[in-house]
Amino acid sequence: MSNRSRRRQQKRVAPLSNRISPNTGRIKFFSDEQLHSIHDATLQILETIGLSDAPQEAIRLIRDNGGKVTDSGRLTFPPNLVNEAISKLRKNFILHARVNDQSLDLSEYKVHTGTGGAAPMIADMSTHTFRQSVLDDLYDASRLVDKLDNIHFFARPMVANDMSTSIMLDINTAYASLVGTSKHVISSISAVSNVKTVHQLCSIIAGSDKNFFDKPFMSLNVNHVVPPLRFDTESCEVLIEASRFGFPVMVNTFGQMGASSPVTIAGCLVQTNAETLAGMVLAWLANKDVNAIYGARPMVTDLRTGGMAGGSGEQSLLTAAAVQLAQYYNFPNSTISGATDSKLPDNQAGYEKAINLTLAVQTGANLITQAAGTQAGLMATSLEAYVIDNEMLGAILSTGKQIEVNEETCSVEAIKKVVEGDGHFLGQAATFNRMSTDFVYPEVADRQAYDSWVANGKPNINSNAKTKVESILLEHKPNYIPKDCDTQIRKLFDIRIRI
Amino acid sequence: MSNRSRRRQQKRVAPLSNRISPNTGRIKFFSDEQLHSIHDATLQILETIGLSDAPQEAIRLIRDNGGKVTDSGRLTFPPNLVNEAISKLRKNFILHARVNDQSLDLSEYKVHTGTGGAAPMIADMSTHTFRQSVLDDLYDASRLVDKLDNIHFFARPMVANDMSTSIMLDINTAYASLVGTSKHVISSISAVSNVKTVHQLCSIIAGSDKNFFDKPFMSLNVNHVVPPLRFDTESCEVLIEASRFGFPVMVNTFGQMGASSPVTIAGCLVQTNAETLAGMVLAWLANKDVNAIYGARPMVTDLRTGGMAGGSGEQSLLTAAAVQLAQYYNFPNSTISGATDSKLPDNQAGYEKAINLTLAVQTGANLITQAAGTQAGLMATSLEAYVIDNEMLGAILSTGKQIEVNEETCSVEAIKKVVEGDGHFLGQAATFNRMSTDFVYPEVADRQAYDSWVANGKPNINSNAKTKVESILLEHKPNYIPKDCDTQIRKLFDIRIRI
Repeated sequence: MSNRSRRRQQKRVAPLSNRISPNTGRIKFFSDEQLHSIHDATLQILETIGLSDAPQEAIRLIRDNGGKVTDSGRLTFPPNLVNEAISKLRKNFILHARVNDQSLDLSEYKVHTGTGGAAPMIADMSTHTFRQSVLDDLYDASRLVDKLDNIHFFARPMVANDMSTSIMLDINTAYASLVGTSKHVISSISAVSNVKTVHQLCSIIAGSDKNFFDKPFMSLNVNHVVPPLRFDTESCEVLIEASRFGFPVMVNTFGQMGASSPVTIAGCLVQTNAETLAGMVLAWLANKDVNAIYGARPMVTDLRTGGMAGGSGEQSLLTAAAVQLAQYYNFPNSTISGATDSKLPDNQAGYEKAINLTLAVQTGANLITQAAGTQAGLMATSLEAYVIDNEMLGAILSTGKQIEVNEETCSVEAIKKVVEGDGHFLGQAATFNRMSTDFVYPEVADRQAYDSWVANGKPNINSNAKTKVESILLEHKPNYIPKDCDTQIRKLFDIRIRI
Repeated sequence: MSNRSRRRQQKRVAPLSNRISPNTGRIKFFSDEQLHSIHDATLQILETIGLSDAPQEAIRLIRDNGGKVTDSGRLTFPPNLVNEAISKLRKNFILHARVNDQSLDLSEYKVHTGTGGAAPMIADMSTHTFRQSVLDDLYDASRLVDKLDNIHFFARPMVANDMSTSIMLDINTAYASLVGTSKHVISSISAVSNVKTVHQLCSIIAGSDKNFFDKPFMSLNVNHVVPPLRFDTESCEVLIEASRFGFPVMVNTFGQMGASSPVTIAGCLVQTNAETLAGMVLAWLANKDVNAIYGARPMVTDLRTGGMAGGSGEQSLLTAAAVQLAQYYNFPNSTISGATDSKLPDNQAGYEKAINLTLAVQTGANLITQAAGTQAGLMATSLEAYVIDNEMLGAILSTGKQIEVNEETCSVEAIKKVVEGDGHFLGQAATFNRMSTDFVYPEVADRQAYDSWVANGKPNINSNAKTKVESILLEHKPNYIPKDCDTQIRKLFDIRIRI
């Protein structure tokens, strides 16, 4: 083990906060034998079909390690190389936040929920109208999320449509995220030439290259493939470059089941797995110490229309199944869960998000992106939905707790005492003591009895959420970038946020 | 095995419909060792603490089988008797419907979702006002549910507040349910003297006592206990009498965690299990061939107010844990899942119901009551919510499917063909063939792209559901009681429904 690896391995014992942290992996969709079959079929795809449109650097890396380019120009991967990468890629690492207890331990079945996406629109819930999202929305989103306890990381959720060049977009996206929240940030880079520049921004904030290298508080989403089995040439270059610069990389693939990948869950996973592993192998060859996160996130297509059906039951099953496949490799993993096809934060949005998220949490997905705030098949963001979904996540995460069974919790003596006494447990010390540790109390969801609810003007979760959004945005205007760094940054880069 | 048992055992091979029928039991919350501990503590409670307020007949049955009444008047159960009942109670039976393919096979982890409750109010969603429910509402509910595919049985959901005597209530509740749907009905009886009368009603509809005995299409919810560990004397008598009359009985208990039972999940389950097993033992002693369904359904209390918190994450975990306890005994089982603390079918209702139901379905609960239509902490019913929840259930049930993994579904050849061809799977025969078998398509939930949604007037699931309710109630006016039976019934009983 290199010194660097050893240093990193030590970091994962760092204490994390005592927020609700499921770690059970209770649901299994596949037997080991079924997972072996999927893995074997995946190796076959990578060895015999391969991927088209690989960038030169990817071809070089794979060719140097036993792979080849077919007559039709497809890059194929030998099984030995894939298996070696799987076994040697780093496991059990941490994604750092700038505040220690917000860091994300990606070992075992530990679950962290966050934002995500590249939504082009933002929804105004008062008027039920949507408009193009801009950079200021991104800052609003990051500082709102900064105050919501069950949203554990901030992945860039919306596109800043008012940025006119790719470098302006990439720099300002990172800046708007990092200035608004101290939680771990996941951003995106749209051109390989921007990797170095964004890295420079991060190093300035960290205080030095070494500081950022030791505790990278920002990672990158990379979609290196356009399914079926075609590299997005530029994104694949970004993947390689970002890995070399020490960014943790989310190796994400988005096969649409029945459209850009097979209609069966097994077939969709085989193809998506091949595409994801291709990226994992490249990231590893680019940097043997890379922190790469396996991000197969296949989506369901409504076969009547060809549109997305991210809120469907089939999506929930597919998502959770993909997580179990990541766990088969012991990879730190990421998935999308929390999509809804509804345009509004309504009943449909509530149940579609909850079904999907409940399964992802019970399966033990490490990073759940798009877990809050998305609407309209990932095409829009709603700030009110962040607040509502944050509370939903509190309930869902709490279902991931372990149940304590021991002599004390089985309560035979306590029951005897109450039965012989006044017959009520509410007044018992044990009840009072567990009140704050064992229960999550909602703030915007309503639990009033019917009469009180009427007397209080029939409040609903949407209006309560709107009030909370307005109050946070009015009061919480953080600046997590120290003043001297900020001055330096604004000299070097075209920063479009004024705070 | 008696002839009667043999006859019944044969019935369970009857073919059921091919509706979405999860049978996985994927989630386990407890290890076997933990379940043993809960069982041991339960036996200890039954042997050393026992239950107060037992009716004379219960005392006689238990005393005749080794139990006793303590000096303080509590009925205690010897462990041998409890264990014998657990092993000899009937397993794997069917609850019949009057249409064969609507019958409910309660073996293994087979899941059936239905209505339930005793809500005193009905919610008018147009005006957001609630009013007392009456008998006509019950008929509307039963004929609405009759048309909703993912609501598999009809358990009496609301109280007919306009019935003035207990016999008028019991007879009309059964009649209004049975006339409106051919699905299995679960009703309720409020006085022991009414059991015989309601049985007579059922026998007339069945054509004879024997017909109803062979295929009882109506079972009874019985709440024989007021926690902690006190019998509801009359309901306990109903349990014994109904078991003798051949009604399948739902042996239900409702401990409130932290209020009428311990604050820990383990302790709450120990007490609730003791209360439920006490009823199971009595039903079995009353009739060794009884079809008794284990119905421990503990609920969560909001410890700040003492009110119910049926929509909480803790509730979801508690519910599913109770189901696993039933499975430890191989008992056909029933649970409440689908409560919400919201008064409206809104985002909160959507996610609270979905979290709870997703876990119950994945755990493999046999009968899930209150799975549709309830609001306001089980205090109100909404007809629109039936339609919305029916669609939610389609999605949730579909997440309980098994995933097929074999050479065909892994799709290596199919992927090769598409990659070498036009790159699209949408046009493939396999895609088309699986379109109707592998996917559930919503009717009232909205999947339109944003632009179409705007062009179509921004419909939402609530308004779509309202339209569907109105249309079904206008068109679907079934009468599942044959005319000659009906004439006879109306001569004998004071039937208050006019159709």
